[in-house]
Amino acid sequence: MKKKYLLAPGPTPVPESVLLKMAQPIIHHRTSQFSEVFRRAAELLKYVFQTEQDVLILAASGTGAMEGSVTNLFSPGDEVIAVNGGKFGERWGKISEAYGLKVHWVNVEWGRAVDPAQVEKVLDANPGVKGVLCQASETSTTVAHPVREIAALTRDRDCLTVVDGITAVGVFDVPMDEWGIDVLVSGSQKALMLPPGLAFAALSEKAWRFQEKARCPRFYFDFAKERKNLAKQTSAYTPAVSLINGLLEALTLIKEEGLENVFARHLRLAAAARAAMEAHGLTLLAPESPSPAATGVYVPAGVDGGRFVKYMRDEMGVTMAGGQDHLKGKIFRIAHLGYIDTFDMIIAVSTIEMALSKFGHPVELGKGVAAAQSILLEGFE
Amino acid sequence: MKKKYLLAPGPTPVPESVLLKMAQPIIHHRTSQFSEVFRRAAELLKYVFQTEQDVLILAASGTGAMEGSVTNLFSPGDEVIAVNGGKFGERWGKISEAYGLKVHWVNVEWGRAVDPAQVEKVLDANPGVKGVLCQASETSTTVAHPVREIAALTRDRDCLTVVDGITAVGVFDVPMDEWGIDVLVSGSQKALMLPPGLAFAALSEKAWRFQEKARCPRFYFDFAKERKNLAKQTSAYTPAVSLINGLLEALTLIKEEGLENVFARHLRLAAAARAAMEAHGLTLLAPESPSPAATGVYVPAGVDGGRFVKYMRDEMGVTMAGGQDHLKGKIFRIAHLGYIDTFDMIIAVSTIEMALSKFGHPVELGKGVAAAQSILLEGFE
Repeated sequence: MKKKYLLAPGPTPVPESVLLKMAQPIIHHRTSQFSEVFRRAAELLKYVFQTEQDVLILAASGTGAMEGSVTNLFSPGDEVIAVNGGKFGERWGKISEAYGLKVHWVNVEWGRAVDPAQVEKVLDANPGVKGVLCQASETSTTVAHPVREIAALTRDRDCLTVVDGITAVGVFDVPMDEWGIDVLVSGSQKALMLPPGLAFAALSEKAWRFQEKARCPRFYFDFAKERKNLAKQTSAYTPAVSLINGLLEALTLIKEEGLENVFARHLRLAAAARAAMEAHGLTLLAPESPSPAATGVYVPAGVDGGRFVKYMRDEMGVTMAGGQDHLKGKIFRIAHLGYIDTFDMIIAVSTIEMALSKFGHPVELGKGVAAAQSILLEGFE
Repeated sequence: MKKKYLLAPGPTPVPESVLLKMAQPIIHHRTSQFSEVFRRAAELLKYVFQTEQDVLILAASGTGAMEGSVTNLFSPGDEVIAVNGGKFGERWGKISEAYGLKVHWVNVEWGRAVDPAQVEKVLDANPGVKGVLCQASETSTTVAHPVREIAALTRDRDCLTVVDGITAVGVFDVPMDEWGIDVLVSGSQKALMLPPGLAFAALSEKAWRFQEKARCPRFYFDFAKERKNLAKQTSAYTPAVSLINGLLEALTLIKEEGLENVFARHLRLAAAARAAMEAHGLTLLAPESPSPAATGVYVPAGVDGGRFVKYMRDEMGVTMAGGQDHLKGKIFRIAHLGYIDTFDMIIAVSTIEMALSKFGHPVELGKGVAAAQSILLEGFE
């Protein structure tokens, strides 16, 4: 017998009540019953996205919403800035290039957040830039980027701030309207506690004006068409019915907990993970601007990172993520977003302690757990 | 959001694959499809009970199988010994008295195992005694009784050893045939990892001979009738179809893990729980003959045991059991049987540590977790 624990930064665990909703007999999508589910889910999405704008619901992974953001806002030849400090920042640039946009790469060392001054310099030097594409939380490096400051830079320019909030929306405070973010995209399999398969995008008024003029080819990800259908409580193409049943339940859970409490929980879990790792003298990947979604940690010298992550998963039943690209084999990532709470962090930390001990790394068992416990205690009355 | 963890000595958590089997559309019980499920489950039960005898499957709680054991084996006026060292030992005596048997109570201090010499003395003094009724694991006091030694005492007498194995069968080694146990009963909601609702009873050849002569009134729990029906792959009365679908799956999981590995896991978890509690200087309820099913621990002075258990359950989401009768408010019990593994013990111990800290009891966080981890490490390659 081996119990399995999913502590990767997506897919994240799905709550039991959401699983049950998705297991209900499927209903047809062109019915008033389904429209009501769709309408309520769309309404609750505004709460989670912290926006008055429509939140489009797409049957796609998060990358689909990223691609749709590029094709619905820009035209071939348009200049954009891609904040490239990790796998997903790089993806913004690659999508843009695939559609013939001219990309100004703002490269950032993996593990660090972009300096807004760096973005401002490129904006000033290239007044034709139409968009700054970045991540609120760069999952590959467990960094939170200063999207509030970036949005402030584009507010008075003919330029959009386009934010990948895939591991940020519903994780920590990214108030779209208040900060003037023009596009905020997310996916289902992170803080929204669903299986993969849904992507979301919300656009500011300014972004919708860009949308009218954008000439990139597009068909499935046609935001104007989706917006029109959303007003009729439906989607342009066949929606992922079961996932949307689950979405309504997951959003209801978030509403019941309250966004502020959800954010506080994620911040507490993240702080506990960092404190536990630091108690063992381990080095954090992103100590200066850590994402509340996941914590990247360098595997100590002498331990094979690939084998370490595989051991935790296959022998101990605990799935954490390793590193990507040049960080492959060098880090592991503890996720703490979505349907994750106190004892998931206790499990993560004790797993790491026991695995390090198995790998011959000198480790005082329980020391990281104690550090985590001290912080997690704040979550109880 | 509050995740829930069930660490009580029954009901225990039900594995996902068992839940899914039970969620399948119900089939009629008088069909060849169901008979095949019933037959395979009955066959696997022999493996778990470690017997060549039939294991009867009853739609009842464990107490039903206890009552059936009394009514199918004895007659009003018969003398029996009830080993009374806890709530469930007492129950043997109460059932016997309800059917007009004469009970010789062998009282044992709660937290201690019965001394076989004590039983032998009563047997010698009362040669008419027809049965010794006892628990392999007395759940209320977390004690394991020496049933092997008791069975040896009755082997050459006209007397049966009747064992409540409700928190023993599938938890630790109680080889029915090898030890000469005459009746072994169990329930579904313990090591068999099912919801409550099924009870089991297996009888030795000697017990079946008693059965032929027993004159206690009985109807629903008619073991001879059940045995006859079992030979036809069915039950006398309507079986709990979904539970039996789940039973086959749960027994398959046990077979796949292997009984020896299941026992080793329970022993390891129990040792970890005890080591963790002792690391904090807490007093065990049953230090001398602890059950591998659950560990009883005295609540430290100054902590209200009732509130303590309630706090862990309602505020922290972790359900452990408190004490019963005169131990109410004085102990808590950590269960470690069934679908329970390494990280459930980590959760249990860290919960207790954090709760003690919340209750103002001086506690070094992580110390018990470390003690548990040292032992739990043995479970990994």
